Parts: sequence; structure tokens; C-alpha cells
Amino acid sequence: MSDDTERHNQKMAKKKAARDKIMATKTGEKGLIIVHTGKGKGKSSAGFGMIFRAIAHGMQCAVVQFIKGGMKTGERDLIESRFSDICQFHTMGEGFTWETQDKSRDIEMAQAAWEKSKELIRNPANRMVLLDEINIALRYDYIDVADVVAFLKDQKPEMTHVILTGRNAKDELIEIADLVTEMELVKHPFRAGIKAQMGVEF
Amino acid sequence: MSDDTERHNQKMAKKKAARDKIMATKTGEKGLIIVHTGKGKGKSSAGFGMIFRAIAHGMQCAVVQFIKGGMKTGERDLIESRFSDICQFHTMGEGFTWETQDKSRDIEMAQAAWEKSKELIRNPANRMVLLDEINIALRYDYIDVADVVAFLKDQKPEMTHVILTGRNAKDELIEIADLVTEMELVKHPFRAGIKAQMGVEF
Repeated sequence: MSDDTERHNQKMAKKKAARDKIMATKTGEKGLIIVHTGKGKGKSSAGFGMIFRAIAHGMQCAVVQFIKGGMKTGERDLIESRFSDICQFHTMGEGFTWETQDKSRDIEMAQAAWEKSKELIRNPANRMVLLDEINIALRYDYIDVADVVAFLKDQKPEMTHVILTGRNAKDELIEIADLVTEMELVKHPFRAGIKAQMGVEF
Repeated sequence: MSDDTERHNQKMAKKKAARDKIMATKTGEKGLIIVHTGKGKGKSSAGFGMIFRAIAHGMQCAVVQFIKGGMKTGERDLIESRFSDICQFHTMGEGFTWETQDKSRDIEMAQAAWEKSKELIRNPANRMVLLDEINIALRYDYIDVADVVAFLKDQKPEMTHVILTGRNAKDELIEIADLVTEMELVKHPFRAGIKAQMGVEF
């Protein structure tokens, strides 16, 4: 074995020992409050990726879409056609707010979505619930962040994971979350005149 | 209609007009080079979310896992059992480098994964190819970033989307990418002694 290879292997062995030691201290298990926020891409995609992962493990789960922009219908079709036995899918909004110009209807929709979310989360059979784009509804105060925070703290079953996505997550939500990822935009093809494309944006 | 509601509706109408105007200028279509990097969660999940979205649209696609940590077997099982007709899945690595301590084998594995990736990308029937955790292999120079950049620039079919994930994406890669998202870690449950859990980490 060359000196270089040996040095590498020793370094990696050390890394492994350090990692194993750290991981051994992580023994807790609980349902997490997970937030995907930021201006970058991937907030919803990562949420859906986790839902498909849960489905793969046979975990019952549910999705509530707070905002429907005519896009992202792909995941819905796939879940409804192939996995409706294990994953409920509810689309409650009817378009981005700037598409509708009807504030009172938007508020009604957001509140109906939140009622459905609570029902799904309260049922402990649902091991993971994705509240897609709920942060948009919270940002416009269509639903009250204090209500959402109180519900998640007091009524979420111990082992249920809840994922909340959308930019501009409120501080109160980040405060109670266990896992928060900020998707930061580094580069976006819209800037180069590329339109929204199937498989990427919807 | 109240004054407040009217103001809101006017504001939203303006937003919609501005957005429609911008979107109308985005007419191009091309296969994108997409990078998910950063220390946060969701890099692979968002990649898998996009693969499932592509599957939902009936787009042929493929996944190459450069690193296999015993985790993330859920997506693989789901794709292989339900979608093998439309999505190929290849796991080439056999563990994180600090798990193996065998540099020459790791290099061999990474290079085999890259050969397979090139073959999959060259086939224009594959509309989306996910190179999961390739950034780890690039970071350790197990594969040459100049090779990867040259291949993506010169040989990727025009309409194919390629997604490259993993922390510490190299500058050369970010340079040629169309869409780059940095997943930033804001809060992580490991800090609170919570272990990796099914559906969340794997």
C-alpha cells in the first residue's frame, strides 16, 4: 500500500470512528416538524421526495396543497393513480392569489385547507403529512400562525412527521420546527429566458 | 366590496399582470443542468421528487447513486418495484468513503458510476438523469470535474435534464449549471439527540 493510500485510509478510519461515536448518541425518535423555505427551488420537490420515500416504506401519509397554480399536477396524478391506498391527496387552493384577485375566497380556501390538515394530522395512522405551500397562506395571514403553532405543539401525535413548505416561513414556525432547510437560489434558468418546463417546474 | 378588499384585489391584479408579462418572455426550452448543493437537507429528496414528477409525466428517466450508505433504499425499492419500465436505477457506490477505508476501490466505483452515467445521458430517450451524490466523488477527485463539465457541455443531448446532487459542488460545475440551489441548514434534529428516522433520513 502506498504512503498516500495509507494516509487516506487512516484519515477515513478516523472519520468513521468520530462519526460512529456521534451517531451512537442519537437515540431519540420522534415525529418531526420540518420546514422547507427560502427563495430557491426544491422546497416542494423535497417534500414530495419525502412523501414518496414514506410510501416506499409503507408508511401511511397525506398531502394538502394550499396553493394550486395549475402546475405540480404530476405528483398528484401519480399519487392518486398508483398510491391512493396509502397516501391521501387534497388540493384546496385554486390558484396563486395573484391569479384570482378574490381575497375572501382565498381566505376561505386556505382555512378549509387548514381544517383538512388538522383532521389528517390528528389521525395517528398518518405517519407523515405534507402541507405544501402553507407558508404562502400564513404569510398573507389567511390562516393564523399562532393557531398553527399551537396545534402542532399540542395536538400533533408524537410520532407524526409534518412538513411545511413555502418561502417566507414565519419566525414563530421556525422557532418550533425540528428541521429547517433554507433553499437558496444561486442560479435560475428564467434569467436566461427559459420557460417553466415539464418535469422541472411542474 | 370593502375598500380593503378592493385594494387587495387591485394589488393582486397588478402582480398578475407583471408576472404574466415576465412569463411571456420565457419561451425557450432546453434540457437543464441542475445542481443541488449545500449542507442542508433535501438535496437528494428534491432530486428524487423531480424523478417522480418526471415519471408522473411519462418521461423516461434514470438514477445513478454514487454513494450508498445503506440508507435511501426506499426510493430504490419503490422505483424498481413499480416503475422499472420507465426509470432505470443503478447503485454504484458501496458506502461512504469513511465507511470503507479503501481508496482504490472507491475510485474504481466512482469511475464505474460515471461511465454508467455517461451511457445513460447519451441515450436521448432518457429525458432526466439524476446523479445522486456525484459531488462527493468530485470533491475527493475520484472523478475529474473537467471531464464531467466537458461531457455535459459537449455530449448531453439538448433536451435532457441532468441533476447533480451533494454538498460542496465544485465551482466549475456551478459555472456551467442552469439551475443551482443551495440547501442551507438552519436547524437539525441530530443536535437534539434525535436519530436518523425512516421516511426522514432514509
